[in-house]
Amino acid sequence: MKDSKKQYIRGEINKTGQSSSVGLIIRQKEPNNLETPFDQVDSFLTPMELFYIRSHFPTPKLELASYQLHVDGAVRNPLSLSYNELRDMPSETRVATLECAGNSRVFLIPQAEGAQWELGAVGNAEWTGVPLGALLERAGIEEHACEVVFEGADRGTPKELPIPPGPISYARSLPRDKAMQQEVLIAYQMNGHDLPQDHGYPVRAIVPGHYGMASVKWLTRIYTVREPFRGYWQTSDYGYWDYLDGKPVRRALAEMKLKSEIARPRVYETLAPNQAHTVFGAAWAGETEVTEVAVSIDGGQTWAQAEFLDPIQRHAWRRWKFDWLTPKKPGQYILLARAKDANGNVQPDQHDQNYGSYVINHPLPIEVFVDDLGRPGR
Amino acid sequence: MKDSKKQYIRGEINKTGQSSSVGLIIRQKEPNNLETPFDQVDSFLTPMELFYIRSHFPTPKLELASYQLHVDGAVRNPLSLSYNELRDMPSETRVATLECAGNSRVFLIPQAEGAQWELGAVGNAEWTGVPLGALLERAGIEEHACEVVFEGADRGTPKELPIPPGPISYARSLPRDKAMQQEVLIAYQMNGHDLPQDHGYPVRAIVPGHYGMASVKWLTRIYTVREPFRGYWQTSDYGYWDYLDGKPVRRALAEMKLKSEIARPRVYETLAPNQAHTVFGAAWAGETEVTEVAVSIDGGQTWAQAEFLDPIQRHAWRRWKFDWLTPKKPGQYILLARAKDANGNVQPDQHDQNYGSYVINHPLPIEVFVDDLGRPGR
Repeated sequence: MKDSKKQYIRGEINKTGQSSSVGLIIRQKEPNNLETPFDQVDSFLTPMELFYIRSHFPTPKLELASYQLHVDGAVRNPLSLSYNELRDMPSETRVATLECAGNSRVFLIPQAEGAQWELGAVGNAEWTGVPLGALLERAGIEEHACEVVFEGADRGTPKELPIPPGPISYARSLPRDKAMQQEVLIAYQMNGHDLPQDHGYPVRAIVPGHYGMASVKWLTRIYTVREPFRGYWQTSDYGYWDYLDGKPVRRALAEMKLKSEIARPRVYETLAPNQAHTVFGAAWAGETEVTEVAVSIDGGQTWAQAEFLDPIQRHAWRRWKFDWLTPKKPGQYILLARAKDANGNVQPDQHDQNYGSYVINHPLPIEVFVDDLGRPGR
Repeated sequence: MKDSKKQYIRGEINKTGQSSSVGLIIRQKEPNNLETPFDQVDSFLTPMELFYIRSHFPTPKLELASYQLHVDGAVRNPLSLSYNELRDMPSETRVATLECAGNSRVFLIPQAEGAQWELGAVGNAEWTGVPLGALLERAGIEEHACEVVFEGADRGTPKELPIPPGPISYARSLPRDKAMQQEVLIAYQMNGHDLPQDHGYPVRAIVPGHYGMASVKWLTRIYTVREPFRGYWQTSDYGYWDYLDGKPVRRALAEMKLKSEIARPRVYETLAPNQAHTVFGAAWAGETEVTEVAVSIDGGQTWAQAEFLDPIQRHAWRRWKFDWLTPKKPGQYILLARAKDANGNVQPDQHDQNYGSYVINHPLPIEVFVDDLGRPGR
């Protein structure tokens, strides 16, 4: 762990200068649901110990010695790989931002059910593993297989209606086209270290560009199916209402939507008037690229361009900053950040109700105070 | 209406001999949800005024003069037919049993949410209309169209989770294979009379063999789609948990399951001891035929064959009777009826939890008392 601390040491943007003792925010104690304190984000890669944890059931404890990854279903040669056999296959290392589909839920009015994530159910890490496509080719995926199902070892009785009968394992499917893309990994490392227990040890899926629920942890089985898999976590939960010929139809969440977040200042922070202040944040775009971030310091009336700190790298976030001269006039100000993608799309003004308590990607208002409080300045 | 009363006059099985003044049982006042008093069933065809009514929203009032039926979507020649144009097309008349998927819900333990249907959310009628296949062929259904969506004029905000945003029209789809079968009708008559308001006036779909929710009332649009339609009434509502490779997946209810019901005696009826008593009921089987009905008068310990009153007629129920000599010994007795179909299947012993509060097709216990109450016999 010494190496990891060294590797992901905080950069110049860090306001506090603290390099340790920052932990996660508890959103749920059991199962483990913990959030990154987003105001602490500095580095391009989120340190492992700061990366948000999203679990549906108690963390399963898998043993390396007995671990087997099954690849079967609509394949010609079903596989069963030990952990070492998996690690012996050619691997790739990729950076990918994972965001929980419910990130920023706490901003919804009226309040929605579910974990009250603020800004930190998102992180950017480097993942190492075997491309899923290589496994599927080795197993001889059948021509008519249209989806690939990931199944985890975590198991329990879920709560969203309609509820399936009896306890079930966490499982999600991926369309074949996406599954065969080079970026989809069966990963065993995160930021150069073996996966921690809460991040899916020993093996998890990583689906760059998709919301976090697609990156199934504690992966024990991959199977291909000849019809779309309408499992619990793509119908009752993590489903949304799309339209087919004008009528609502239930679909499974998949690609992350374009989004920017302000990390600093944080909500209700008090800033000195007429001072240089750096607004800092990050933006990501699912299957496309973030090309622009604009910041408003007057609640959306006027906008100014932010400056990127990271280059475009598909599936990874881009940190940005905006040098702000705080107003002379004390008062309450609403900061917003709004991203634009390579296709010319910008974030929507409002939350789209079709997504329920998911996909909260409108610009999130960060209220701050400007007041000198008798201080000599900062 | 004189004709209809004459046509469906009660038969010899009628115990009470009353031929009028029998009405429906209210299960919900608005929208109209009314049940057939199943103990009154006698005739092969359920009289129109005794046929159960299942509505999701307030009854829409459609005018014949302005009525148009649209046939579009994935077709080469979209159609728009007036009521007269539809009636001018070649028609067919078919008998079909319709059962509400929630029929007999009141027998579930613990009590389930929803209308507390007893035995009478089922009926058998003669329907007249244009075969759907003829309309689809006239419209030139595209090769890649896999389903046909029926849309009704009834509209509102449904209640089962997950709830779609805003009010929607009642809509359901049918797989192409079924849609092209001769028996599926776009109907405008029921038992030889124009459809009553509550049964879908002026035009409804009739999908023999499927639960009632498929037979969309107040039909205004038929459209074909190139991908499965995952609308509200086949996912949130009228969905069930099937298994794909051992994992629960959400599917839409469709075919009616094999079922028998005892109409008489009724629950807690008191019968004289050591007397001839005719147990009477009906059985149906969705897409196959009922070939046998057995009756138990001792709660399922022993079974005896019932006698059919109707021949096999695909998609129609078969009434049956069982001549019972009531026990000499007074007491409480549990009557059961269990059907067998042409494939050798029998009704399951228990309600299948995967169907939630739908598909209640286990043999339903009818408790009766045998007691002479000082009567001279019946």
